[in-house]
Amino acid sequence: MSASAAGPDFDRTELIPAIAQDDDTGDVLMLAWMNREAWQETLRTGRVCYWSRSRKKLWRKGEESGNVQEVRELLFDCDADTLLIKVHQVGGAACHEGYRSCFFRRLDPNTGEATTVGERVFDPAEVYGKS
Amino acid sequence: MSASAAGPDFDRTELIPAIAQDDDTGDVLMLAWMNREAWQETLRTGRVCYWSRSRKKLWRKGEESGNVQEVRELLFDCDADTLLIKVHQVGGAACHEGYRSCFFRRLDPNTGEATTVGERVFDPAEVYGKS
Repeated sequence: MSASAAGPDFDRTELIPAIAQDDDTGDVLMLAWMNREAWQETLRTGRVCYWSRSRKKLWRKGEESGNVQEVRELLFDCDADTLLIKVHQVGGAACHEGYRSCFFRRLDPNTGEATTVGERVFDPAEVYGKS
Repeated sequence: MSASAAGPDFDRTELIPAIAQDDDTGDVLMLAWMNREAWQETLRTGRVCYWSRSRKKLWRKGEESGNVQEVRELLFDCDADTLLIKVHQVGGAACHEGYRSCFFRRLDPNTGEATTVGERVFDPAEVYGKS
């Protein structure tokens, strides 16, 4: 093992994809984006904070639903432009649709049909309310 | 389980990030990009084909090294703008630097130091040659 100062290269890539993986089960939970500010907030708090591209602001994952992601391990790839974050997923669900993982649909390559294979943990209407 | 016609939405997002996960170990191997053409090539061949953003052409993963990725399962996320592909990684290494996974470096959030934690499976100089 060798150690050196390095990490995601926000100078070269302003928005870096971050993969959240459940550290207990190995399930890939979601992919979202980080800019430097979100990355620093993640380091500071020990909870995953993304950058919302649609809302153009920090997205402290789980702030509303309570389903925060506690950082267990931070890894980055050979090109320093993708993050893999192993997390403890509080509440057991990462997806705003109530599934454990955002990747809850499987595609049949032959028919093009999608099948829901993920497990629904909560009802979004109850967690986020209706307005 | 319910089935419906769906899949990654290339009409809305021209380049979609695709996460390759080792179907046997659960290790996240890499993230690269697909356009519609790469996606269709992947479906047609049963081997993962990305779109190289730097070379601006199809990237049939493993074409040179032999380390192809055989598709085991295709999943897509709630927003239909990210793919998760479970693969059999031939040769045991996905990374062009010879590591099993491209995510072979861990960051210490307190010191900012990176440590190589991944396992090197091959020597890139031997596989890709030197010119």
